[in-house]
Amino acid sequence: MLHELFTPSVQHALDLIGIFVFAISGALLAVRKNFDVFGIAVLAEVTALGGGLFRDLIIGAVPPAAFTDLGYFITPLFATVLVFFLHPEVERTQHAVNVFDAAGLGLFCVTGTTKAYDYGLGLTASATLGLATAVGGGVLRDVLANEVPSLLRWDRDLYAVPAIVGSAMVVLFIRFDVVNAFTSGLAVVTAFVLRLLAMHFHWRAPRAWNRKSARSETEEATAQ
Amino acid sequence: MLHELFTPSVQHALDLIGIFVFAISGALLAVRKNFDVFGIAVLAEVTALGGGLFRDLIIGAVPPAAFTDLGYFITPLFATVLVFFLHPEVERTQHAVNVFDAAGLGLFCVTGTTKAYDYGLGLTASATLGLATAVGGGVLRDVLANEVPSLLRWDRDLYAVPAIVGSAMVVLFIRFDVVNAFTSGLAVVTAFVLRLLAMHFHWRAPRAWNRKSARSETEEATAQ
Amino acid sequence: MLHELFTPSVQHALDLIGIFVFAISGALLAVRKNFDVFGIAVLAEVTALGGGLFRDLIIGAVPPAAFTDLGYFITPLFATVLVFFLHPEVERTQHAVNVFDAAGLGLFCVTGTTKAYDYGLGLTASATLGLATAVGGGVLRDVLANEVPSLLRWDRDLYAVPAIVGSAMVVLFIRFDVVNAFTSGLAVVTAFVLRLLAMHFHWRAPRAWNRKSARSETEEATAQ
Repeated sequence: MLHELFTPSVQHALDLIGIFVFAISGALLAVRKNFDVFGIAVLAEVTALGGGLFRDLIIGAVPPAAFTDLGYFITPLFATVLVFFLHPEVERTQHAVNVFDAAGLGLFCVTGTTKAYDYGLGLTASATLGLATAVGGGVLRDVLANEVPSLLRWDRDLYAVPAIVGSAMVVLFIRFDVVNAFTSGLAVVTAFVLRLLAMHFHWRAPRAWNRKSARSETEEATAQ
Repeated sequence: MLHELFTPSVQHALDLIGIFVFAISGALLAVRKNFDVFGIAVLAEVTALGGGLFRDLIIGAVPPAAFTDLGYFITPLFATVLVFFLHPEVERTQHAVNVFDAAGLGLFCVTGTTKAYDYGLGLTASATLGLATAVGGGVLRDVLANEVPSLLRWDRDLYAVPAIVGSAMVVLFIRFDVVNAFTSGLAVVTAFVLRLLAMHFHWRAPRAWNRKSARSETEEATAQ
Repeated sequence: MLHELFTPSVQHALDLIGIFVFAISGALLAVRKNFDVFGIAVLAEVTALGGGLFRDLIIGAVPPAAFTDLGYFITPLFATVLVFFLHPEVERTQHAVNVFDAAGLGLFCVTGTTKAYDYGLGLTASATLGLATAVGGGVLRDVLANEVPSLLRWDRDLYAVPAIVGSAMVVLFIRFDVVNAFTSGLAVVTAFVLRLLAMHFHWRAPRAWNRKSARSETEEATAQ
């Protein structure tokens, strides 16, 4: 199996860390939206497990890992408890949370791509599902919180591009038959570092050209 | 099969009642949102069948019951017609609708948990899917209506907790091998009564502790 | 296989055209919402492929066609590039886009119904999934853009009804065993023409009767 990139226990520990930090981001948004403790737990679970759940439904891996691995389910509940009691402290460590979130992004785009390929999908489809694994939970989080997904907004630092780069590296490695723990780790680190750089330098993706139509200007005015 | 808790025809009749009352709640929200008759039908269907559809996709029961049992599909259309012509009268009976909705909540968390366990999921995963069966349709309803899911909001009476209790009772009964029509019925009734009490006494779940950060206070002010 | 209604290459070309025009509608909404280029691509993909993806998950056709046919995935990216560079010109051709969108609606309700029936669903369920194939992508588009789905709003010209008519014609043809390229084409054209007429004459579906309760009037006032 390709997707045992690392030893199973290392892989599992990495997965749980990724799930935990994604859950923190969901729980923090829930607190900001004034949700109750169950709302916090739901948003933590959805953010942490939503991307992998989507991937598993698409590739036909049912029941999804989110429902067969108890650790996957319980980890977001720890994040919920932590944020419930200590959210001002957690908010103050927002920078640390962002760094861990970047690590989760890098990790999930790589493991997602690999798992999709293991289930027989093509290279492009595998990379797409790797991206979906990494960013899907955050999109579901924002939809449930009734906000425009921050993934889609131009006024947020690049988030999809690092995951696209990481996923693309994995399928290139698969294509040239050089997938192993080292190259996979390289893809994780590249996505991770790109995301850190994007946050540090506030890199943003361009919006559509020629946005000078009357319609767009009006909307920009109201958006400000 | 475990999930034949009651005789098939009794089980089916109970399912249809649950679907009908959930559909009423979807149709009423659609009228309030000023949707047309097709929007009312869509919201009725989604509210009534969404939770079970999610469960069936997760456990791999495809095509889902919502698409194989004609009664499941047609019942929400009856609710649509009723609300379309008589919605002021239905609104006036909002209290009765709430009581039936509580019955649907109790019923679906029990049948959802049992069906998930029948399909081989673990106890925790089964209880989670029982909860998702009971509350999933309402979440989808609110997402489609572009509102913050009332499940997540702290200013609504407890809704998830009764379903959690009902689902937890079922997995305990399974664990100790005492599942039968009587114990299952007990779980349904417990969830139902807890929800009625929550509505009567306006029980609410707590929000995060220490919500005294500047951010939270501003948000509370604007929320009022 | 029933769902080879036309020769495979004709069918595939029609599918790609439908995907392309749906993607254009998603990309245009993304530009209006001020999304960046990745947001435009995501909304184009979701609008074009979302309905078919939902259908394939329901009928158990995994991995879905959207992830196995490279053309399906790449076509929305062409639409993204086109809208990114030329969106004022594309907006100016909104009428042409609407005509193509109507063609996509007619095509997808027919192919969706046929594929669902091929996978063993009943006639009513097949017609429902045909409708979902045709309109599902647009609903997902609006949910991700954090807007009330235009499908559900009464102040939009009929959109669901033409697709319902097209899907219903297909199941009637199946029922009476007269499915072939000609009758299927007739269903496509009927749905297409009905949608064009609905746009031309601004046909709308009725809202609930007796909307004279205090609640409704207040809401109408604020909606204006």
